[in-house]
Amino acid sequence: MKKSLVALALTGAVFSAYAQSSVVIYGTLDDGIIKRTGTTVQEGKRDNNKLGFKGVEDLGSGLKALFQLEIRFEPDTGTIESVTRPLFQGQSRVGLQGSFGTLRLGRGLTAFQESITAFEPWSGMPTPAGFQTDLQVAGYVSTFGSGSDPLGPTGNSGNRFANSAFYNSPVLGNIFQINTTVGTKENDGSTVALIGRGTAAAPQFPAGAMGSVVPYSVSVTADNGPAAMMLAYERNEVDTKFWSVAASFKPLNELKLMASYQQQDQTETVLTNPKTKAWLIGVNYSIGVGKILAGYGQKRPDNDFDNPALVKTKQTSLGYEYNLSPRTYLYLEGTNKRMATTLNYYAMGIHHNF
Amino acid sequence: MKKSLVALALTGAVFSAYAQSSVVIYGTLDDGIIKRTGTTVQEGKRDNNKLGFKGVEDLGSGLKALFQLEIRFEPDTGTIESVTRPLFQGQSRVGLQGSFGTLRLGRGLTAFQESITAFEPWSGMPTPAGFQTDLQVAGYVSTFGSGSDPLGPTGNSGNRFANSAFYNSPVLGNIFQINTTVGTKENDGSTVALIGRGTAAAPQFPAGAMGSVVPYSVSVTADNGPAAMMLAYERNEVDTKFWSVAASFKPLNELKLMASYQQQDQTETVLTNPKTKAWLIGVNYSIGVGKILAGYGQKRPDNDFDNPALVKTKQTSLGYEYNLSPRTYLYLEGTNKRMATTLNYYAMGIHHNF
Amino acid sequence: MKKSLVALALTGAVFSAYAQSSVVIYGTLDDGIIKRTGTTVQEGKRDNNKLGFKGVEDLGSGLKALFQLEIRFEPDTGTIESVTRPLFQGQSRVGLQGSFGTLRLGRGLTAFQESITAFEPWSGMPTPAGFQTDLQVAGYVSTFGSGSDPLGPTGNSGNRFANSAFYNSPVLGNIFQINTTVGTKENDGSTVALIGRGTAAAPQFPAGAMGSVVPYSVSVTADNGPAAMMLAYERNEVDTKFWSVAASFKPLNELKLMASYQQQDQTETVLTNPKTKAWLIGVNYSIGVGKILAGYGQKRPDNDFDNPALVKTKQTSLGYEYNLSPRTYLYLEGTNKRMATTLNYYAMGIHHNF
Repeated sequence: MKKSLVALALTGAVFSAYAQSSVVIYGTLDDGIIKRTGTTVQEGKRDNNKLGFKGVEDLGSGLKALFQLEIRFEPDTGTIESVTRPLFQGQSRVGLQGSFGTLRLGRGLTAFQESITAFEPWSGMPTPAGFQTDLQVAGYVSTFGSGSDPLGPTGNSGNRFANSAFYNSPVLGNIFQINTTVGTKENDGSTVALIGRGTAAAPQFPAGAMGSVVPYSVSVTADNGPAAMMLAYERNEVDTKFWSVAASFKPLNELKLMASYQQQDQTETVLTNPKTKAWLIGVNYSIGVGKILAGYGQKRPDNDFDNPALVKTKQTSLGYEYNLSPRTYLYLEGTNKRMATTLNYYAMGIHHNF
Repeated sequence: MKKSLVALALTGAVFSAYAQSSVVIYGTLDDGIIKRTGTTVQEGKRDNNKLGFKGVEDLGSGLKALFQLEIRFEPDTGTIESVTRPLFQGQSRVGLQGSFGTLRLGRGLTAFQESITAFEPWSGMPTPAGFQTDLQVAGYVSTFGSGSDPLGPTGNSGNRFANSAFYNSPVLGNIFQINTTVGTKENDGSTVALIGRGTAAAPQFPAGAMGSVVPYSVSVTADNGPAAMMLAYERNEVDTKFWSVAASFKPLNELKLMASYQQQDQTETVLTNPKTKAWLIGVNYSIGVGKILAGYGQKRPDNDFDNPALVKTKQTSLGYEYNLSPRTYLYLEGTNKRMATTLNYYAMGIHHNF
Repeated sequence: MKKSLVALALTGAVFSAYAQSSVVIYGTLDDGIIKRTGTTVQEGKRDNNKLGFKGVEDLGSGLKALFQLEIRFEPDTGTIESVTRPLFQGQSRVGLQGSFGTLRLGRGLTAFQESITAFEPWSGMPTPAGFQTDLQVAGYVSTFGSGSDPLGPTGNSGNRFANSAFYNSPVLGNIFQINTTVGTKENDGSTVALIGRGTAAAPQFPAGAMGSVVPYSVSVTADNGPAAMMLAYERNEVDTKFWSVAASFKPLNELKLMASYQQQDQTETVLTNPKTKAWLIGVNYSIGVGKILAGYGQKRPDNDFDNPALVKTKQTSLGYEYNLSPRTYLYLEGTNKRMATTLNYYAMGIHHNF
């Protein structure tokens, strides 16, 4: 029976006209029991929880098309991440990969944010025991007006650029790689004014305002096997600047030492004490089926390190992962974080990749 | 070509580092035509509509890791369930299974709510023809201040615990199983005050308040083949209590008889007539490729069964399912539900599992 | 070990009781760089971005059950389409297919909207360079009170019926096909009043109002290979009427010529100039691995074509697609759209199906 117009449309809607691509479904579920200073026992995550879809198409001649869509969610309540974040909070990107490197469009971690997690003992996990969200970015993601996406919807992750192009070079000389993210000045959905150096009546960035500069992020990484380094610089759409230098060293296969130093500069939106500095050191040590994670770091919310009125943050963390398989482990961790007040945090739970 | 830091991160983002797990995609689409007293003809569901992702990882030595994520949606409009419920309304759980039983963390049906559906002629489907949502839980899920999650967001399902641990024992003595759900006192997202025994000015549970007790749910089931029984007890985070006893018997392979009795106690939040009692009887009869469903039940919104001011609910339902395959059937059903007013409800549609 | 009640329920939740169906995951990612009159450079889509799940079950005797669920999203920000549309904005439908044709229930493109895209040079893509959203439907989807779903939530797509039955006939006489969509009078979620021929105090359709008529949509298509035709008529739930006639011809395999004429009639809700007429011509020409798209069309927002106060829309578009594979292409396109003001629009990007 011959198929006519809508018959074709309909069949096309049920059977793909092109060869079925092999979409990979992947994800992480991480949930545990938490006790932190001042609250009762809670349940919640240590790592980001995700359900993703990705695929690679071989276009011939070494060229590939690739896409990735990653849902983020809260395991303890079943909502999307933070209830209000985008459905594909993890990332939504599409692009090409070839001898020139990888070029993608969409929304995802910036070049800096994607590179830095290799130099943090918790691999960038958002648990309060980890250092990435606060210390390793010198407060960059947590202060309004800073972060990678200050003109995005309130509560959105501050580690990502929307409306951007993402480029990763091939590995050069067997050691170096250059990563770049460039965005547009588009307002990414903010409905709140950023007062900045303006006033409540005349905010520096009214609700819905465009960025003042084109945001970009660059990281250069070097890796010769036991030793690795990273240099990164990022400026966001309201001209907050951030730079970081980080290194890691593996004296033994089981032992990884890490250190980083970083500085944030909010001169364009903050009048007093616009600079923040932070450093941290960390270690990962594999022992049998387990892994020990430990770290210490400080953050100073000013460039005046001798001003006693400005409170320094001092964080000490210790964790243990017990591997049930390469995909699944149990964990136990604790943190002491001294700021104006002190936060103690303990968690145990399960982490499962699929 | 050697891969450097972000190269690895990038490749890892496209090709999983671990062996690809076999994620199972499953779901249900159920949609039909509905006529109920006082409205025009509508289109809508009889059963929950779902799209789920689940997997099991063999950890060796009889131990398994398992996860399940279940999207719920409205088939007639394409929105998530009730427009506002969590993305993974069905469940989001991760855990371990072994000789000790099954232990999971996250959000899902409580032990009681998961056990009771085996004793209801509509298998717990949310259609008005079914008895679970109202009679089989003695109104427990439909009154604010009761239900499994009274401090969850308004409109959320009242059959689930968030922030909980779920334990199912192995089958003991070839007959018995014990199921337990224990939650935390966390507020699960409620932004509305529960006045309870307080006043509008000083509600018993202000918006965002924590629970007064640790919520838990227990069910014990017994099944020797033709006969099965359940005893269940649940108390929620505002100390509403619920218990139920249920039984089923299969005199023939094609015939299943069911009965249950249940009682809700809202003494801690309601001043007058805090107790509700309900009972129901039901039958499933398979005949050829069809199945007949029938049931009758009553609910009394008080412990004073002789108080004529309190209106009894009396529900009679009849349904028929015509199987096109083990995964797909057509259905036809009707209900007469007498309360202060009378609801007549008729529906026909298609139910498809994938 | 024998499995008891919840054990069965639990296992059933992890391993489907029925044979695993083969769910097909499919989708489109389309993202590019855009410049339009009056704005800075932006990033965004040319086509709808989708992630879908569909399946077909063979029921024997030529009968099939089929379902389709299609998520729509914004690639540049990762949110669901337009931030607020239903999760399964693309469609959520379930039904049966056999020698009688295809009958589905749920929400999806109307018979007219599903048929017309074959007669538009951009295949109905929502880019401003395409003609479907505005000219090919004579403004039908873009004016409040018109569109296929005027009583749906504000911002919802105007190309779809919710709460509907969708019927496609088999191909008759090797040439003809009849497609019909019939909805209910249900309010599909509108929370805004449609003043129409009423007043602000007494709107014709208050918030939450039901439709005044049963909405339906019919298209008849004919296709003998090189030549194809379509006749379509649709009326929505507030009795706005729309009809269209369209044709295409392929003098060569590489060349497709298209034309359509359409008229909208809002007499039931608009007092002055309730009729809108539009026409367009278009061409697709394949050359090597490329494809040229071009079109020109006009829309007149009145039945009085000589009234100089009513501004005519005149749109000219040109595009080029460079195929990297049958699933992936790069594109470049431009539009000049003269209305009261003039819009120039340029875009380049990547389109990837999976």
